Amino acid sequence: MSKEKLNEYLSQLQNLDAGAMERAQARLDNLVKPPGSLGKLEEIAVRLAGIGGSMVCNAEKRCVIIMSSDNGVVEEGVASAPQAVTAAQTVNFTRGITGAAVLAKQFGADLIVVDIGVNADMSHPGIQNKKIRKSTWNIAKGPAMTYDEAVRAILTGVETAVEAVENGYRLLGAGEMGIGNTTTSSAVLSALANLPVSSVTGKGAGLKDEAYRRKIEVIEAALKNNKPDACDPIDVLAKVGGFDIAGMAGVFIGGAYMRVPVVIDGFISMVAALAASKINPLTKEYMIASHASFEQGFAHAEKALGTEACLGLNMRLGEGSGCPLMFAVIDAACAVIKNMGTFEQANIGGDYLNEIKDGDNFTI
Amino acid sequence: MSKEKLNEYLSQLQNLDAGAMERAQARLDNLVKPPGSLGKLEEIAVRLAGIGGSMVCNAEKRCVIIMSSDNGVVEEGVASAPQAVTAAQTVNFTRGITGAAVLAKQFGADLIVVDIGVNADMSHPGIQNKKIRKSTWNIAKGPAMTYDEAVRAILTGVETAVEAVENGYRLLGAGEMGIGNTTTSSAVLSALANLPVSSVTGKGAGLKDEAYRRKIEVIEAALKNNKPDACDPIDVLAKVGGFDIAGMAGVFIGGAYMRVPVVIDGFISMVAALAASKINPLTKEYMIASHASFEQGFAHAEKALGTEACLGLNMRLGEGSGCPLMFAVIDAACAVIKNMGTFEQANIGGDYLNEIKDGDNFTI
Repeated sequence: MSKEKLNEYLSQLQNLDAGAMERAQARLDNLVKPPGSLGKLEEIAVRLAGIGGSMVCNAEKRCVIIMSSDNGVVEEGVASAPQAVTAAQTVNFTRGITGAAVLAKQFGADLIVVDIGVNADMSHPGIQNKKIRKSTWNIAKGPAMTYDEAVRAILTGVETAVEAVENGYRLLGAGEMGIGNTTTSSAVLSALANLPVSSVTGKGAGLKDEAYRRKIEVIEAALKNNKPDACDPIDVLAKVGGFDIAGMAGVFIGGAYMRVPVVIDGFISMVAALAASKINPLTKEYMIASHASFEQGFAHAEKALGTEACLGLNMRLGEGSGCPLMFAVIDAACAVIKNMGTFEQANIGGDYLNEIKDGDNFTI
Repeated sequence: MSKEKLNEYLSQLQNLDAGAMERAQARLDNLVKPPGSLGKLEEIAVRLAGIGGSMVCNAEKRCVIIMSSDNGVVEEGVASAPQAVTAAQTVNFTRGITGAAVLAKQFGADLIVVDIGVNADMSHPGIQNKKIRKSTWNIAKGPAMTYDEAVRAILTGVETAVEAVENGYRLLGAGEMGIGNTTTSSAVLSALANLPVSSVTGKGAGLKDEAYRRKIEVIEAALKNNKPDACDPIDVLAKVGGFDIAGMAGVFIGGAYMRVPVVIDGFISMVAALAASKINPLTKEYMIASHASFEQGFAHAEKALGTEACLGLNMRLGEGSGCPLMFAVIDAACAVIKNMGTFEQANIGGDYLNEIKDGDNFTI
């Protein structure tokens, strides 16, 4: 039932609007600057046109969707913080005092906080109760969840994104809170991209050396015991992932379904984006990378997805904290295509334009 | 006379306020996040405290100072655009239609446009007439300017920055407009950092291969003929620089003198920052790098200065266009230190805090 519903969403994903992208590119090339000299701002403006089907940016109402969930694997000692921090921070988002909350407010974005599996009874008007179950199981001992639960977690993300767009949001970000989720993310990445665990595993919030070695062993054991099927990303999410990662993968799918851009945050968000792209590659067209997380593994996930972050801030907080900053960069891209003058308006004649357009080795 | 005046400014530059930086770091370490997990946002917040002597960010009024000037070397065919574009774009800044103007408006920054050597009679209420002379001379045939003119150009930048701060601006950016100024910037960088011309020279706005080879030859000839003294950065600016670069170097000095941060834009701005740091290393403490320009040579200048850009947008427009985006990142740093909750406020207890503070191999 859930699977059919998910497949229905997936079957309706579409390519970007090539015509709108061409029109956007043509306008950008006619603005008063060397062609391509605004780099990724121009690339983003073109993609936004393709996503929305129009050169007019319409991203004023934006939000970060935060999937909060607990991970059974924390009982292996792989996280530096106690599990209770997940519930505490989930509430703190609504109080505006976490990093992501502060940055969202700074850049005019709302937070949509979803309890998709926190290991506590949560009842809070500012937190959407979409709990699949209280915490996943310990991946060192068995699968994190059933296949059906993974599908439901993804669907939860899809529907949260769809609701957000129905409520007027036109620009989404995918964030998370879940003690232990760099462990599950490394496991998912290792399985999906066929990379050694040691190369994709970092120290998370701040593990000591011994605990870090233990974390690698735990992930290796989880992969060995669960044997996730790399050809079935939902199987990978079910066996070694988490409700948060699955939910975020759903947010990327839901954003693509509703034809709005979804900004990727850090390591966990990037792994969820990779999972979504493995479920349906069209989702990738709607994703925009934000910052290069300092967490080991991020660069591997970024490469596997085939995208490139715009901000190099050595951040590794997660929560979706990189998304609001990227919203500002996206605003910049919109302002450029909308407000810059053309060569004609700038009183700069054809010779200049022809010279730089003819550049035989012009690099962008 | 000018030299004494400049030396007076230089002699009054001060170190950052170490006490304020310690207090800022202590607050950041007590906010509800793994220590250091907001990366460069935290580093910027600490630096701003050191610059302003207080944890309270006071950067609401901000501007980009644009030094517009022409370069005699364009007669060698080293630029893809005609010289008249300098004057046209200088006016276009005041009309709000250039890239820097659009991005400044987007992020609430003003432009201060200075004619420090445009090769045209400019009379415009929105352009400060501080012309040293109409265009420098051709560096391929002799020095760009006299030593005294270089000192006056630097002083012009210093005084423009001082005036801006006196007018309430608390955050500056250093931009430029000047056809041919990637040629002069590469020459200055090659001289100051003792690097081969070919490694620090790019295609600017879009040179063809033949013109690019010519550009390298011209710079090599300029350095050979003028023999700039690498130990005297003012001599380097005079012999192979431009009024724009010298003026921008002055902006960095003036910002440091007034104890406000000055944001570096792209290649030309970074070379000017390097020149300022060679004139007085204390200026570097007040500089904040913004984006990694796509122009070849930028990375060398960045390394020579010992700084690291925060934005990777492949931009190479110049004008100061990267500064407004960086203002937004600086705003984010201010919001973090001001508005995030402490562990205590977040109801997260001592165990978590102690665990992550004890991390013996904790990396930031």
